[in-house]
Amino acid sequence: MKKYVYLFSEGNANMRNLLGGKGANLAEMMNLGLPVPPGFTVTTEACTRYYEDGQTIAPEIEEQIYEAMEKVEKIVGKKFGDIDNPFLVSVRSGARVSMPGMMDTILNLGLNDVAVEGLAKQTNNERFAYDSYRRFIQMFSDVVMGIDKNKFEKILDEVKEKKGVKHDVELTAEDLKEVVKRFKELYKQEMGVEFPQDPKVQLLEAVKAVFRSWNNPRAIVYRRMNDIPSDWGTAVNVQAMVFGNMGNDSGTGVAFTRNPATGEKKIYGEFLMNAQGEDVVAGIRTPEPLDKLRETMPEIYNQFIQIAETLEKHYRDMQDMEFTIERGKLYMLQTRNGKRTAAAALKIAVDMVAEGLITKEEAILRVDPKQLDALLHPTFDPEALKKAKPIAKGLPASPGAATGQVYFTAEEAVEAAKQGKKVILVRAETSPEDIEGMYAAQGILTARGGMTSHAAVVARGIGTCCVAGCEQIRINEEGKYFTVGDKVFKEGDYISLDGNTGYVYGEELPTQDPSMTGDFATLMEWADQVRTLKVRANADTPIDAAQALKFGAEGIGLCRTEHMFFDEDRIPAVREMIVARTEEERRKALAKLLPMQKNDFKAIYEVMEGRPVTIRLLDPPLHEFLPHDDEDIRELAQQMGITFEELKATVVKLQEFNPMLGHRGCRLAVTYPEIAEMQTRAIMEAAIEVMQEKGNTILPEIMIPLVGEAKELKFVKDVVVRTAEQVMKEKGVKIEYKVGTMIEVPRAALTADEIAKEAEFFSFGTNDLTQMTFGFSRDDAGKFLEEYYNKNIFESDPFAKLDQVGVGKLMKMAVELGRAARPDIKMGICGEHGGDPSSVEFCHRIGLDYVSCSPYRVPIARLAAAQAKLRENK
Amino acid sequence: MKKYVYLFSEGNANMRNLLGGKGANLAEMMNLGLPVPPGFTVTTEACTRYYEDGQTIAPEIEEQIYEAMEKVEKIVGKKFGDIDNPFLVSVRSGARVSMPGMMDTILNLGLNDVAVEGLAKQTNNERFAYDSYRRFIQMFSDVVMGIDKNKFEKILDEVKEKKGVKHDVELTAEDLKEVVKRFKELYKQEMGVEFPQDPKVQLLEAVKAVFRSWNNPRAIVYRRMNDIPSDWGTAVNVQAMVFGNMGNDSGTGVAFTRNPATGEKKIYGEFLMNAQGEDVVAGIRTPEPLDKLRETMPEIYNQFIQIAETLEKHYRDMQDMEFTIERGKLYMLQTRNGKRTAAAALKIAVDMVAEGLITKEEAILRVDPKQLDALLHPTFDPEALKKAKPIAKGLPASPGAATGQVYFTAEEAVEAAKQGKKVILVRAETSPEDIEGMYAAQGILTARGGMTSHAAVVARGIGTCCVAGCEQIRINEEGKYFTVGDKVFKEGDYISLDGNTGYVYGEELPTQDPSMTGDFATLMEWADQVRTLKVRANADTPIDAAQALKFGAEGIGLCRTEHMFFDEDRIPAVREMIVARTEEERRKALAKLLPMQKNDFKAIYEVMEGRPVTIRLLDPPLHEFLPHDDEDIRELAQQMGITFEELKATVVKLQEFNPMLGHRGCRLAVTYPEIAEMQTRAIMEAAIEVMQEKGNTILPEIMIPLVGEAKELKFVKDVVVRTAEQVMKEKGVKIEYKVGTMIEVPRAALTADEIAKEAEFFSFGTNDLTQMTFGFSRDDAGKFLEEYYNKNIFESDPFAKLDQVGVGKLMKMAVELGRAARPDIKMGICGEHGGDPSSVEFCHRIGLDYVSCSPYRVPIARLAAAQAKLRENK
Repeated sequence: MKKYVYLFSEGNANMRNLLGGKGANLAEMMNLGLPVPPGFTVTTEACTRYYEDGQTIAPEIEEQIYEAMEKVEKIVGKKFGDIDNPFLVSVRSGARVSMPGMMDTILNLGLNDVAVEGLAKQTNNERFAYDSYRRFIQMFSDVVMGIDKNKFEKILDEVKEKKGVKHDVELTAEDLKEVVKRFKELYKQEMGVEFPQDPKVQLLEAVKAVFRSWNNPRAIVYRRMNDIPSDWGTAVNVQAMVFGNMGNDSGTGVAFTRNPATGEKKIYGEFLMNAQGEDVVAGIRTPEPLDKLRETMPEIYNQFIQIAETLEKHYRDMQDMEFTIERGKLYMLQTRNGKRTAAAALKIAVDMVAEGLITKEEAILRVDPKQLDALLHPTFDPEALKKAKPIAKGLPASPGAATGQVYFTAEEAVEAAKQGKKVILVRAETSPEDIEGMYAAQGILTARGGMTSHAAVVARGIGTCCVAGCEQIRINEEGKYFTVGDKVFKEGDYISLDGNTGYVYGEELPTQDPSMTGDFATLMEWADQVRTLKVRANADTPIDAAQALKFGAEGIGLCRTEHMFFDEDRIPAVREMIVARTEEERRKALAKLLPMQKNDFKAIYEVMEGRPVTIRLLDPPLHEFLPHDDEDIRELAQQMGITFEELKATVVKLQEFNPMLGHRGCRLAVTYPEIAEMQTRAIMEAAIEVMQEKGNTILPEIMIPLVGEAKELKFVKDVVVRTAEQVMKEKGVKIEYKVGTMIEVPRAALTADEIAKEAEFFSFGTNDLTQMTFGFSRDDAGKFLEEYYNKNIFESDPFAKLDQVGVGKLMKMAVELGRAARPDIKMGICGEHGGDPSSVEFCHRIGLDYVSCSPYRVPIARLAAAQAKLRENK
Repeated sequence: MKKYVYLFSEGNANMRNLLGGKGANLAEMMNLGLPVPPGFTVTTEACTRYYEDGQTIAPEIEEQIYEAMEKVEKIVGKKFGDIDNPFLVSVRSGARVSMPGMMDTILNLGLNDVAVEGLAKQTNNERFAYDSYRRFIQMFSDVVMGIDKNKFEKILDEVKEKKGVKHDVELTAEDLKEVVKRFKELYKQEMGVEFPQDPKVQLLEAVKAVFRSWNNPRAIVYRRMNDIPSDWGTAVNVQAMVFGNMGNDSGTGVAFTRNPATGEKKIYGEFLMNAQGEDVVAGIRTPEPLDKLRETMPEIYNQFIQIAETLEKHYRDMQDMEFTIERGKLYMLQTRNGKRTAAAALKIAVDMVAEGLITKEEAILRVDPKQLDALLHPTFDPEALKKAKPIAKGLPASPGAATGQVYFTAEEAVEAAKQGKKVILVRAETSPEDIEGMYAAQGILTARGGMTSHAAVVARGIGTCCVAGCEQIRINEEGKYFTVGDKVFKEGDYISLDGNTGYVYGEELPTQDPSMTGDFATLMEWADQVRTLKVRANADTPIDAAQALKFGAEGIGLCRTEHMFFDEDRIPAVREMIVARTEEERRKALAKLLPMQKNDFKAIYEVMEGRPVTIRLLDPPLHEFLPHDDEDIRELAQQMGITFEELKATVVKLQEFNPMLGHRGCRLAVTYPEIAEMQTRAIMEAAIEVMQEKGNTILPEIMIPLVGEAKELKFVKDVVVRTAEQVMKEKGVKIEYKVGTMIEVPRAALTADEIAKEAEFFSFGTNDLTQMTFGFSRDDAGKFLEEYYNKNIFESDPFAKLDQVGVGKLMKMAVELGRAARPDIKMGICGEHGGDPSSVEFCHRIGLDYVSCSPYRVPIARLAAAQAKLRENK
């Protein structure tokens, strides 16, 4: 028969998957000889089995639970429901990884009408016993049976009123007996049966409740936020109760072996005398710093310090511990690797290497790459933030903190920024035409759109703080103001945005710039020594490129050329090109764009000083460059000197039902090869000129987007190669260049062998590949994905974390087919996933040469790449 | 060294791939001892090589051509450029399959200033010799060198004017000498060099021209229309000239061994005395029926009849032959399996089985399934059609012929049809709201939209004639008229549409209904005996279902429920459901729909009498059911008794950037499980009631659309199963039913093993699967696909003919993964490809159980399935 229940003495720290983190560590502490109240763990497999069996506990498991119970009773020499010496337990959840506060806990289990008397005798404190009993009834009713706890509070209030007292502590034992009586009546009224007196029934129901709590909504959300699979399940720990509230020689506390905020090597904790753990958490009384314990109970203090040191050495990591003192005796209730801030994580990792406690490789694995994000963006001054009150909340679409004056159009934002103002751009939603304004702004606030809206995607790309979809604000663009409730914010008024929380503040708040501390630099250096996966950045401007270099990028993996087309200098020529009636007219317009494009590329090459730069040919559908409402069309037609009807006809002709699946990418170059010619010429002339002027070797990589068929790639590639060769002939210079393609259409992955014959490199465009593989567009999916999370269908956002099962299968197929056809083909990824740690690890595993991500995610990718390499070695 | 050139005596009919159809058959006829002018064939491999070598002919091929040339000279005893006995040849293209008129032909090659004198001597006809020479110069200049032939015509006209004559035949030998002189001057002026006098140079250039012509635009279009791969290349046949224009004992003609229009077993042909082949084709003189030859040249006639019989017996198929009589001697210039109408194909196949010439299996393989289409729709009376002149031309979007009175809205069309009028619905473009009007109409004409527009897809589905994207017509919907040029057609005026050609006629034309002749029935019966692949139909109404049964469908593979929602009785309840603020309100609206849906299903079950019916749950995004412009919204809001603002807000909320990738399919059921509940209830209640009322066993197959992830399917399936079990419990009846899914999202194919665990059947929705795999939407692709065909990137429309390389790879993967996980899973296809013969064959090959297509394509699919089985056996 399978073993579903382990005594603490039967487990150890390596059994985390089976026993959960809490259970494994309790067992380990017991093995270390530390003072742990005895108990047992019901395994995570029992939880899985519980769900498989239609949310019931199989008889064999039930039996094992009772057996373990009896053994523990023997160890402690108490008995469940005993009138002299009753045995009481706590029942706590404990998953593989800590999910603090997400699941349920029941204390004092085992109390009933008999045991309460035993407890009174045992403690010589009747009031304490009945207080414990009424607390247990309430907790059991609420947590296990789902009875609204307010109904109990109401009874308590009534009794207090009757007795003319204000606080719980003023109630006598007799009063509490009455409370217990009325609580039990309430229970019967709600449940139709008496409050269970059999501790075995109490126990089994409590275990089920913990299993159920694995799938409560907040646990589901927490798992999604933390990438925890739903099939792991939780274990349940049943442990003999110890009481920190048995008088002034009792107490309870929590402590960290190092400071979790700063990483400082100094024990850090707090405690409360005569209290239970929940009192510390509830914050009713203010706990005292741990140092105080040294004065009041020096022996206990010293014992605890020694245990803390033992545990940190044993686990070789900073520990987060819970302890209880019962009548002058110390008990350890929990230890785990402590959560810490990004800064603390870095300091602790680097310090521990210096202390000889861990290796550099271990240090690299100790820091969660995602955490680094917090170090790479401005933050609010913590003191100022404490005092501030948010006026609204939107989605935390792009991290960082921003403060500035409100402007409502991109033009005005640009203008204000030129005057040296700090600008917050506030829009209903943004469109590609707003790009310049978004660059000029400190932060972006939109009233509509989700985490993958245009504003969110662009803001993350350029590292600008953004709060999106803030539906509480009403924008009046013409009147140049917005309102929240009855507050009005006019153009020029100050607001602040927190891109990490989504909060909007109606005032100016001081911000702090990110500082890359010594520890940060040290750890990054170690990571770079380890990793084999290269890290590039997605950058469209010299500013982005410079930022990327600062963060350690080794090249540009994606330089989008369309953003250059939106620049106000260029858009007239772009539009001229679009409305051109003949190829000749189109070429005339393109000729105007050529020198500008060339200068764009020169500026980027100069910053990148010889590092590889992958430039993608024009990708978006042409209608994105034209206005859509009649008024704007009329105005533009006038500017362009054509009739409204002609321009309107062009706009209508270019309209698409599904722009994402429309006339874009290489399809543009198939229809208008002259666009690809102009861009190739600009790319090559710029490279040659920078080489001649600066002496750098420039290796342009020309990338053809949205390819789905080898012949399509060949057609465009032929145009590119012909033009490149022509430019080199004209200039009398030969330089190396590569022509490759995005793999972002499922068919490209499926036919990657054919495609590789024409492509010198592949770059996985996993944004589009995800959209097409799942068949939903990121602009629209927001409307239903929330339901998918709620209903446990999706556990993470496939646009943030690569779907390794589906999209990843296509990628793997493409890598294998591609390398078989062209062994030296270079492969990378340039979708947003390039900056997501689990996706970076996947890219390493399937053998990509590099990942490319937004500049602000480069350090994250560097660390994730190193971790991937280290895990692979294991 | 590879052999690139074959004398006719070296080839045979089996070498079609290498020698092309014409070359292989010339060789075969020579082997049969028939009178064939000698010559040789340059192989299709030489053509491929020509393109590989950058459009040049390799020296080794050149050499082989000259060698063959010399051998043929010896055989005929003439010499190139000889003054006494000059050797002249024809140079003709000849691909594997016949592409009549698509590629180039050059006659009289070998003529030069010397040979022309030889020809004059030889024929004793100086005028003939110079006339041939001037024709050759013109043809060579035009076809080989690309000089505008009008420049030659102009010279000819000038000479005629100078001489005061009207017709070419009035010009004397001397006149023609002047023409030749001026032609050669023109050539020099255009090309910068003299007209080539060396016949070897002429020959090599002509061969190159034929190779080049393989990729001329009309050849590319023809290949696309006929599914001919572009890498086959063409062969070139060089053959000694024989002259049908050497006097009244000479002539030329074409003949079929059976009537190609009706299939009647009687030789059918026509000829012209004293003429060359091009004269027959050009239609300047009217040819005489072949019977006439029996009177004028009985020996030649008898010889030809005997040859025709020999050839038909030899090839065991109806032959299409070309012959020339030179001075009383018969020469065979070509034989090939003759093209024939659908009716003739059926009759010939069935007759030949009766004659013992071929087997039933061969007969099945003899009829092109695509051709059957012509027999399944009404056609115009051929005599009336001859006299009619089209007023406009659109895309032949759905086959058939229709005549009727013009109406401009769906409502008016329905109204007029109710009054017994024949209706042609004329719309700028159609939308789902027009469905009823489309059903009511004989034919549909739209001004906008392509072959895959809504109008086209629906019309093909319901077998209604449709001409789409007819841009010449201007519709004034309010004024209830349309114009073409200066002609005005008002509501109620008669027009006619030809869905096979795209022509629109401004008058009433009599139509003929399709008749399934005895031959049709016979061949279909044979096909059904052979095939293993089942054929179902896509049908949404009892009318469609009945039509499908008439055509031999074995079940319904796709019953779309959304069309039922557009019905004018139901749409108010549908809209109520959409604007519902709460689940309760939504359920109230759904309750109104339930009885209607149930009756829909009952009516279909009754028609299908126990055959399987696959019903797909609601698929389109909800905004399709709401109006989009403010005026309509205002009107509807008033009808619904809600404010304009509220309805407008709903419309805006439901708007999508990419509806194809939006909130639709099973995503609707995830968000609103109550919709799936109502539909399941209707499906099950209907099945039980029909069973109880009619005694048929009904097997409903409930299909969940747009699944991409197994958990998503499981969620909706649980709703369906729970409801179905509930209904059966209520009714106290147990019936069998299946729950399955569409495979139409790439990720579903990639994870088909997981999906199969939850699905009892797969139905490949290759319309959407094609869109997502290629990354283009069929609504938008029309704008650029034309360029893809022109540039040889795509050879066929992936929405019509399944892309076996990409989409097919996903399907194959899904079949294998699915069967591995659930061996008895049933699999079919319900995309439009289900009615395309090559796609049907692919479905057979990968092991699907059935194909489902529009009722009108069922016979096509039946025949294609039989052919697939027979080819597999080979």
